[in-house]
Amino acid sequence: MSSTLSALLSPRSVAIVGASDNIHKIGGRPIHYMQTMGYAGTIYPVNPQRESLQGLRAYPSLEALPEAPELAIIVVAGDAAVQAVADCARLGVGAAIVIASGFGEAGEAGKRQQDEMVRIAREGGLRIVGPNSQGLANFGNGTIASFSTMFIEIPPQDGPVAVVSQSGGTAALVYGLLRNQGIGVRHVHATGNQADVTVSELALAVAHDPDVRLLLLYLETLSDPAVLAEAAAVARARGIPVVAVKSGRSQAGARAAASHTGAMANEDRAVDAFLARHGIWRVEDAHALARCAPLYLRGWQPAGRRLVIVSNSGASCVMATDTADTLGISMAPLSAATQAALAERLPGFAATANPVDVTAALLTNSGLFGDVLPVVGADPSADLVLLDIPVAGMGYDVPRFARDAARFADQAGKPIAVAAWQDAVVSEFRAANVPTFVHATDALAAFHQLTAHQQLLRDVAGEPAVPRAGRPVMQTDESSPSHTLSEAASLARLAEAGVPVVEHYLCQTAEEAVAAWQRIGAPVAIKASSPAVPHKSEHGLVALNCNSREAIVEAFTRQTQTLDTMHAPCEGVIVARMSRGQRECMVGAHWDPVFGAVLLVGDGGKYVEVVRDTAVLLAPASPAAIERAVRSLRMAPLLDGVRGDAPLNVAALCDVAAKVGNLVHRAHGQIRSVDLNPVMLGADGAVVVDGLMEVVAG
Amino acid sequence: MSSTLSALLSPRSVAIVGASDNIHKIGGRPIHYMQTMGYAGTIYPVNPQRESLQGLRAYPSLEALPEAPELAIIVVAGDAAVQAVADCARLGVGAAIVIASGFGEAGEAGKRQQDEMVRIAREGGLRIVGPNSQGLANFGNGTIASFSTMFIEIPPQDGPVAVVSQSGGTAALVYGLLRNQGIGVRHVHATGNQADVTVSELALAVAHDPDVRLLLLYLETLSDPAVLAEAAAVARARGIPVVAVKSGRSQAGARAAASHTGAMANEDRAVDAFLARHGIWRVEDAHALARCAPLYLRGWQPAGRRLVIVSNSGASCVMATDTADTLGISMAPLSAATQAALAERLPGFAATANPVDVTAALLTNSGLFGDVLPVVGADPSADLVLLDIPVAGMGYDVPRFARDAARFADQAGKPIAVAAWQDAVVSEFRAANVPTFVHATDALAAFHQLTAHQQLLRDVAGEPAVPRAGRPVMQTDESSPSHTLSEAASLARLAEAGVPVVEHYLCQTAEEAVAAWQRIGAPVAIKASSPAVPHKSEHGLVALNCNSREAIVEAFTRQTQTLDTMHAPCEGVIVARMSRGQRECMVGAHWDPVFGAVLLVGDGGKYVEVVRDTAVLLAPASPAAIERAVRSLRMAPLLDGVRGDAPLNVAALCDVAAKVGNLVHRAHGQIRSVDLNPVMLGADGAVVVDGLMEVVAG
Repeated sequence: MSSTLSALLSPRSVAIVGASDNIHKIGGRPIHYMQTMGYAGTIYPVNPQRESLQGLRAYPSLEALPEAPELAIIVVAGDAAVQAVADCARLGVGAAIVIASGFGEAGEAGKRQQDEMVRIAREGGLRIVGPNSQGLANFGNGTIASFSTMFIEIPPQDGPVAVVSQSGGTAALVYGLLRNQGIGVRHVHATGNQADVTVSELALAVAHDPDVRLLLLYLETLSDPAVLAEAAAVARARGIPVVAVKSGRSQAGARAAASHTGAMANEDRAVDAFLARHGIWRVEDAHALARCAPLYLRGWQPAGRRLVIVSNSGASCVMATDTADTLGISMAPLSAATQAALAERLPGFAATANPVDVTAALLTNSGLFGDVLPVVGADPSADLVLLDIPVAGMGYDVPRFARDAARFADQAGKPIAVAAWQDAVVSEFRAANVPTFVHATDALAAFHQLTAHQQLLRDVAGEPAVPRAGRPVMQTDESSPSHTLSEAASLARLAEAGVPVVEHYLCQTAEEAVAAWQRIGAPVAIKASSPAVPHKSEHGLVALNCNSREAIVEAFTRQTQTLDTMHAPCEGVIVARMSRGQRECMVGAHWDPVFGAVLLVGDGGKYVEVVRDTAVLLAPASPAAIERAVRSLRMAPLLDGVRGDAPLNVAALCDVAAKVGNLVHRAHGQIRSVDLNPVMLGADGAVVVDGLMEVVAG
Repeated sequence: MSSTLSALLSPRSVAIVGASDNIHKIGGRPIHYMQTMGYAGTIYPVNPQRESLQGLRAYPSLEALPEAPELAIIVVAGDAAVQAVADCARLGVGAAIVIASGFGEAGEAGKRQQDEMVRIAREGGLRIVGPNSQGLANFGNGTIASFSTMFIEIPPQDGPVAVVSQSGGTAALVYGLLRNQGIGVRHVHATGNQADVTVSELALAVAHDPDVRLLLLYLETLSDPAVLAEAAAVARARGIPVVAVKSGRSQAGARAAASHTGAMANEDRAVDAFLARHGIWRVEDAHALARCAPLYLRGWQPAGRRLVIVSNSGASCVMATDTADTLGISMAPLSAATQAALAERLPGFAATANPVDVTAALLTNSGLFGDVLPVVGADPSADLVLLDIPVAGMGYDVPRFARDAARFADQAGKPIAVAAWQDAVVSEFRAANVPTFVHATDALAAFHQLTAHQQLLRDVAGEPAVPRAGRPVMQTDESSPSHTLSEAASLARLAEAGVPVVEHYLCQTAEEAVAAWQRIGAPVAIKASSPAVPHKSEHGLVALNCNSREAIVEAFTRQTQTLDTMHAPCEGVIVARMSRGQRECMVGAHWDPVFGAVLLVGDGGKYVEVVRDTAVLLAPASPAAIERAVRSLRMAPLLDGVRGDAPLNVAALCDVAAKVGNLVHRAHGQIRSVDLNPVMLGADGAVVVDGLMEVVAG
C-alpha cells in the first residue's frame, strides 16, 4: 500500500476539523466510532469553541495540534473546507477526507471551488478523498473516518469483505446487507465526488490487505481503468473475487449519474468489455453486489455447473428446475447407484431422480436431508446442490436440517445453497455458516454467478497479459479534426496491416477497369472511390455482378458522372472481385478516450444496426478470446453449418478482428474508427469487401 | 358457484375420516383449525378407536353419522382411502378431499388405485379433490380442510386474495409470503394430483367470491383450458387480476413435473399464448406470484408507465434509472414548473430533475419526502412513483416518511412503491398500507407487471370474444395416422382458404413447363412436387431464376429423373413466378391436443430454426393481435423500412397468418400442421412461396 493510502486506511493519528461533542452530528460520529470501535491511534478534535469534547482535548486549529496528524477528516463546509485543505497541505498532513457536499455535484460555482481545493492539495502533495464523501471505515484497526449511521443500525464485525464505492449510501447499503447475513466486513469506503482519490486506487490498496477475501465495488464513472486493472490483477493473484456495479448503463442512468456527482459517461459496452477482460464480474444493483458473498467466502471451486435440487416440495423442485434451465445450469444425471441409494432412504412415493423430492415425509423423518445430501454429494455428476425449503417451522426439526447441511458444506467440497424465507429457518442455516438465500431463484442466480465468474477468471488466466499500466493518455481528444479515408485508401491501409481484403484495382479509366476485370477473370463489383462519399450505395455508386466489357464501361462512366454531378473528388473507380462468402459479417473498432481500442465483431450486412448481434472486446484481444465472444452471439449456431451449409471459417473472422484491433490499438488514437461491413465469411476464409477508416487529420 | 364446489368451499358439515385427537397430526389439524378459526358448521370426527376427540363426539364410520356430511376429508391411506371414497359416494356426501399420497405420483400401482378411486367417485356423482392434496382452506367461513402448518406459523387473516395451486407446498408458501407482508388471504386451495377437481374449477369458483380481489394460481399441468378461460373471463368482468405460475417451462422442468404429480407436459409457448389470450399474467416462480399483490390490491390504474424516482441516495437513483430502462419504463420528464417547485423545497445541491435526489439532507429535514411527493405527483407526466430508501433508521424520522407516503398513496391516485430492506423501515411503511419492496429492482418489476398486465387486459378487451367454452374434445389424437400433402396440393388448399400463394402451374411435361413460364412472362422457379419428398431443396429438386426454354427443359428433366431414382411418386413439376418480396417471413400453425390451433408468425428463410424470431398465438386470432405480436419481434424495426427500404406490408402478413390460423382452427384436428416458409413480404403485399400441410389420413 502506498504511504498516502496507508494514511487513509491506517493512520497513526486523526484530526477532525469541525469536531462535535454530539455523537449524532457528522463532526461527532467518527470520534464516537473510533473511540468505541478499537481505534488505537491519537484522535485530535479541532473545534475553536471547545476545550474538550467526547472526553478528548479539543484544539482550536490544525496548527495548534502537537503534531501534523496523519489523516484529517474535514467536516466544515464551503470556503472553510477549502481553507482546511490548504492548512493540511501546508502542515504536511498525510491525507484528508472532505465530507462536506455542495461542490462538484452542485453546479458551476461548486465545481470551481472543488477544482481550487484539488489544485491546492496537489501543490502541497496532499491526497484527498471527496468532497461529498461519507468517509472511509477500516474495521480491522478501528479507523472509522465515516459518518454513516448504518454502523449503529447493524453493529460491525471485522471480516473478509471490502466494499469500495463512489456512493456513501450504496457503501452503507452493501455493508448492511452483508452484516444482515452475519458476514463480517473489513472495509467500507466511499469516495464521493472523487476529485482526487478514486475507487480504483482504494480497491488497489485493499486488494493488498491480507485479510480481504472478497472485493465489492460501486462505480458511477471510471476514469482510471489502468489502476482498476492493476487492482484486479492483484486480486486475481491473491484469489480474491472482484464484483462491481457500474451504474449509468442506460442513457437515462448516465444522465442521472452526471447530475449526481458530475460523472463523465462511459461507453457502456466498453465498460462490459473492460470488466470482463480483467475478470471483474459485473452485476446490476447493490443487492446483487452482496448476494453471492456467502458462496464466494466459502472458497468453493466446483468442477462444473451440474445441479442437484433437494426439496420437501415437489412444485419447488419443478420451479427451480425451470429457473436453472433459464440460467443454463443443467440437472446432474444421477447414476443408477445413487438413485438406488436414495430409494433406500426415501419413502416410496418420493422422487429419486434429480430433482429429489423428499416430500412432506420430512415432517415425520427429520433425518431425510441428512440421509440424502451425502448420497447426492458423492455422485460424480453433482457439482452444485440446492436445498430448497419453501415450508418449514413448527413440526420441523430445522436445527437438525441446518446441522446436516453444515456437515455437507464442510465435508463434501461442493457448493450447497439453501433457499428459505422464514426468518426462523434462515437464521438456523446462517448460524451454521450455510449460504442461505430467500428464494431458489436468488440461490440459483448466485450459483450461476459463482461458476460463470470462475470460468471468466480461467479465461482471463489463459489470455496474454494486458500491456502494463494500461494505456498512456491519448494524444488526441474527441474534438481533434478527423476525416474519413476513401475506400481505396482504407483497403490499402488494411491490406498493409495483413487484413485480407477483396482482390481489387483502383482504375482511372474505363479501359483500366476492363483490364482489371479481365485480370480477375470473374464477375466484379464496380465502386467509385471518393473520400467525400463514404456511403456509396445510397448514391448509386455501386454496381454488382458486372461480367462484360459493356457493363463495366457503362458502370464506370455512370459513376464518374455521378461524382461529377455531386462535385465530389474522384480517386478512381474500384474494380473488385465479387465475393462468394456464405455470411456477411462485420468487424469494427474505434478509439475510446478512456478504454483505448474497442473492438466489435459479429453479424453484418445491410441491417447491422437493426440486427445488433455483435460482441465487444477491448483490443488487443487474442483470437481465442474473440472466438469465445463470437460463439456467444445469436448467430453462433449458423457458424458450424446448418441445413447442409459447410462450416464457416470462424478462425479467419477472428484473425481479421484481432488484426483490426491491433491496428487501432497501435495507432493510439490516430485511427479514430474502422468499419468493415461486410466481411464475407465462407468455409475457406474471410475477406473484407467494404471498409472505411476514420483518421485524425494531420 | 356450483353446488359441488360449494360443498368444498362452504360446507354445512364436515366429516374427517381418520380423525385424530393430536392437533399436530394430519387427521387432527383440520379439526383444530376449524374449531379455532370460526367454522360455524358441524364437524364429525370419524375414528373407530375413540368416543370423542378434541372435545367433539367421534363416530366409528361414515355410516354411523347422523347425516351425510356435505364434505368429507379423507386422511386414511391406500385401500382405506378408496373405501372411504366409495362410502362417500354411496352415502351421498357432497364432495371429498383425499389427503393421502402414494397414488398417481407413485408409479403404476398407485396410478391404477387412483383411477379406481375416480371411477367409483364418478359413478356415485361424488367430486373429489386430490389425492395427494394438502387440502382447501376458506378463511371467509373457517372451512380449513387443510393440514398446512403454515397457518400456525403465520396466523391467518381473512382478506382479498385467493391462492389456488396444484401444490400444497406452493399454496402454503404463497400464503406465507402474503401474510408476511400483512396481506389478508381468503382462499388457500391445493388440488394435489387433481384426479378430479382441478385448479381451473376452483379458480372459477373463487372468482365468483364477492370479496376476492386478486387470484393467484400455481399450475403444473393444464388439461381443461376452457374452464380456466371461463374463470379468467369472470375475473376480468369483476376487475380481478389473475396471475399464474405454470411450471414445467423447460424440458427438464416438465420431466420433474411428470415425476411430481404424473402431470402431462404442455407445449410451453402455447401456454404463454393461452394465458396472454385470456389476460392472465404469467410469472416464473412463487415469490413472483406474491410480489405484485400490494400494488394490485390498491386498485391503481396508472395512465402510463412514466416513472419518477425519489431517493435519499444519488447512487440508488442512478441504479433504479438503469433498471427502469431495462424494463422499458421511461423517466417522466418533469416540467420546468415542477422542477422549480422542487428547487424551492430541496437543498441547493440536490437534483431536481427526475430522478429526484433529496440527499442526506433528509437526516436534518424529515419533511423532504412529504414536501417532494405531492409536487412530483401533480406533474402530469408522472405515472408511477418509486420512493427508494436504501439507508434509514437511527436519526431518520421513518414514521413520518411512512405517513407522508401513505398520504400520497391515498390522495394522488397514482401508484407509489417504496424500496426499503431494513425490517424496522419496512414495517412502518407496510403498517401504513404503502406497497413496500425489499429493493428497487423488485419494486420496478412490480410496476412493470402492474402496467403491462393492465395493457394486456386492455388488449384482451379489444379482441373478439373467444368461442364459448373453448374447444370441443379433438376428434383425432396424436397417434392418428397423418400424411404430408404435396406442395401443389398444399398450395391449392391454401389458395382455397383465401391465402395469397405465388402464381404457379403444375406441369406434367417439359412443354407444359415452358408454356407456364411464357404465361408468367418472368423468371420462374422449378420445383418437383411429390408428397414423398417434403424437403425438396435438400434433394436438388429446386431450380431458381430459370428464364429460358433451355433452362426450364433442363430443370424439368433433371428433377423428374431424380424423383425416378428416388422411387418417389411425381405429381408433376411446379413452375412458379420468382417472388420479389423484401423479407422472407414464416407463418405456421399446428393443432395442439389441449389448446387447439396454435399459430406461429415471424422471421423466415433458410435459417428459421436458428434465428427463432417468431411469435406464438392461439387461433383464431385477430389481425390486430397478430400485428401486436409481430411488432414485438426482434425483426420489428426492419418492418417499417430501414436504410432506404420501403416499409413492408405488415398487414398483409398478418392477414395470411389470421387465415392460416382460422383454417387450422376450423379443421379441428384434421389439419395437423401448416408450414409456410418463406412467405415473401414486400411493400405491396405478402405471398406464400413454399407451403406444406400435414393432414390426418382419412
